Amino acid sequence: MTINKTVRVGMVGAGQLARMTHQAAIDLGINFVVLAQSPLDPAVLSGAEAIYGNYRDPSALLELAGCCDVITFDHELVPYDLLRLLEKRSFTLRPGAKAFMYSQDKLYARVKFSEAGFSVPEFAPLGEDIFDGIIDFADAHSWPVVVKSRSGGYDGRGVWVIHDETEARAFCDRFLKTVTPEPEHREPHPEKDYGQVDKFIYENKKYQFIVEEHVEIQKEIAILGVRRPGGDFVTYAPIETVQRNGICNELFMPADIPDTLANIAKETAARIAELVGVVGLIAVEMFVDQNSHLVINELALRPHNSGHATIEAAYTSQFQNHLRAVLDWPFGSADMKVNAAAMVNILGGEALLDPRQRLGYISQYPTLAVHLYAKEPVLGRKLGHVTAIGGESAELLALAKSCAEELTSPQ
Amino acid sequence: MTINKTVRVGMVGAGQLARMTHQAAIDLGINFVVLAQSPLDPAVLSGAEAIYGNYRDPSALLELAGCCDVITFDHELVPYDLLRLLEKRSFTLRPGAKAFMYSQDKLYARVKFSEAGFSVPEFAPLGEDIFDGIIDFADAHSWPVVVKSRSGGYDGRGVWVIHDETEARAFCDRFLKTVTPEPEHREPHPEKDYGQVDKFIYENKKYQFIVEEHVEIQKEIAILGVRRPGGDFVTYAPIETVQRNGICNELFMPADIPDTLANIAKETAARIAELVGVVGLIAVEMFVDQNSHLVINELALRPHNSGHATIEAAYTSQFQNHLRAVLDWPFGSADMKVNAAAMVNILGGEALLDPRQRLGYISQYPTLAVHLYAKEPVLGRKLGHVTAIGGESAELLALAKSCAEELTSPQ
Repeated sequence: MTINKTVRVGMVGAGQLARMTHQAAIDLGINFVVLAQSPLDPAVLSGAEAIYGNYRDPSALLELAGCCDVITFDHELVPYDLLRLLEKRSFTLRPGAKAFMYSQDKLYARVKFSEAGFSVPEFAPLGEDIFDGIIDFADAHSWPVVVKSRSGGYDGRGVWVIHDETEARAFCDRFLKTVTPEPEHREPHPEKDYGQVDKFIYENKKYQFIVEEHVEIQKEIAILGVRRPGGDFVTYAPIETVQRNGICNELFMPADIPDTLANIAKETAARIAELVGVVGLIAVEMFVDQNSHLVINELALRPHNSGHATIEAAYTSQFQNHLRAVLDWPFGSADMKVNAAAMVNILGGEALLDPRQRLGYISQYPTLAVHLYAKEPVLGRKLGHVTAIGGESAELLALAKSCAEELTSPQ
Repeated sequence: MTINKTVRVGMVGAGQLARMTHQAAIDLGINFVVLAQSPLDPAVLSGAEAIYGNYRDPSALLELAGCCDVITFDHELVPYDLLRLLEKRSFTLRPGAKAFMYSQDKLYARVKFSEAGFSVPEFAPLGEDIFDGIIDFADAHSWPVVVKSRSGGYDGRGVWVIHDETEARAFCDRFLKTVTPEPEHREPHPEKDYGQVDKFIYENKKYQFIVEEHVEIQKEIAILGVRRPGGDFVTYAPIETVQRNGICNELFMPADIPDTLANIAKETAARIAELVGVVGLIAVEMFVDQNSHLVINELALRPHNSGHATIEAAYTSQFQNHLRAVLDWPFGSADMKVNAAAMVNILGGEALLDPRQRLGYISQYPTLAVHLYAKEPVLGRKLGHVTAIGGESAELLALAKSCAEELTSPQ
């Protein structure tokens, strides 16, 4: 058996992002292994080699790392301490532990971006008296305010828009019964980077939430880029995301924004990628505010839901370029090969129809690309996505939306 | 475990065609199982579920058929008798045994196409005295002539261009030492279709080769189409193939032929698909002769090497539409989504370099799509392919060729 003669990439997580990364790995002839939780995980069903275990279990992570040349991630949920453990054992994590702090810890990201001169929403950490903290912040700015869980939130989870004192009180009554274990005291690490992160965690350990101004926005965009270890960086065309209930399920590219703004957005993403020191894909979500200024919202350091249209619309998909980045290989072009594209997620509907069993009945959308994730239908769950290319954005979006809905709706 | 709740497609063969069909199956959320010969087969390495066995072994074929809703093929080498056995047991083969006769038996195809009025090269079966047969045919037509193995040939194997009597003698000395076992006597089957095939096989059992005129050609094209069980048929844009040593390793689409000829070619392919009764992909290879007339050369009834560019250049790849056809699902559009595309195979070079280990060093072709098959390098072996899209055909072809060569050459 000479099966292991080529590189071997391990990915923590086996969801749809790992599934699509697996497809990209096939094209490159790369061995791809996922850390999965179940044999029904999307990337296991697509045929990726799997190690089973929890991403919070050091032995599972060490088993994955031990059989791979490089480790990457399809989510940001691996605890910082475990990432550091792996690095201490000289495994190659891309992105590394320090970079992950920016996507794991919203307070850390806001503070560091603010210090580096990036435009972020006004914010404050919420300490022991959360109710007073919210009221003080609203007095100093205005209602509504946005309260965010400092870590662990995504897809609209961990984000609350609070319009007045009554809602603030309700929020506190609802959420502050759960006692968060206090992070243990951490001796600052002798190595400089780790030491700075340790110091931040220790000094800010009392904050579980942050409160922010509610930015009045024109639109939301995402800049996706990939960065190699040496700093090479390329960006995709700006993507315009349509948020509903805090989840981005519809988007089109390129975003409908002026070229000058697009260029500023791309340059900002490049500077952020450099500050963060990411290796692999970075998605920088930005608000375009009422004055057409860009405000940094959040980061993801992995292939991103907003970038699925790159499979059909760019010369090289986000998944393939993520692999190229973590392997320190030259990038494929991130340029668009078609004029425009729109992507809509296929969400589990109330009828719990499985889109896998609907595909054979749908003939009205021959030019659309359907990607199913082989997940059991659950209301609101992302079961797949549909991409439309060519033509005009609004038209493509309507087409993709109609197809996505039909795949989960009774006729 | 509810893993088996969706459709299950079995493919006999686990080479690169099965590997790329597997990638298409992932998008559709389809369970895909291959009959493989080795754990190092390309489709096994891409993660397709595998049953191990030989495609000439009835028990292996029955095992595959027993766990799938439909069986399809990545080659045409399964003996006709075994295909019939599977159909007799009521398994669904797509394409079916009778259709396969057209791609397995060159004499059958020539006779049937000729009877149906399609333009084929002048031909004659070669009986007991092969040398005399060749000489007689050359006298009646002209030198050179082409001798073809009646079955089993592909990629230039089983085809010999013979220029004169000396070469005819050399051919006979070389090849006629191998005694072919005579096909056993077959009782004509009571069912009409099978019966006709049986009768043909029995009446022509003495012919192992055919001899044909050497058509002077302007160019070679391939029309790829897909057909559903009920007869729905769509074609891709004509593909122009560049043959070197009988192997098609370079091609571009659309072919550089007048629209009227392209339309005739597509209509011809549709009529052939109907005659053959294929379900799934059909590739009809045609010559454009010196008078700009089309002459049918050969068929393949499976995804085809000439159609790899459909992955990037068409809305729906040949692999996905093959799956849709065998499942009797509505087709995705076969239209091109870019102006032009070129594809070049990556062939094993003399240095036996593995393109998997060269990808990290090649940065000059960022817009090209590379597909590697995870095969060990052997001189002349297809190890992958490269597709270039956009721009002008000749330029794309040169770019793809240069990249393909660099992936197997020392710097």
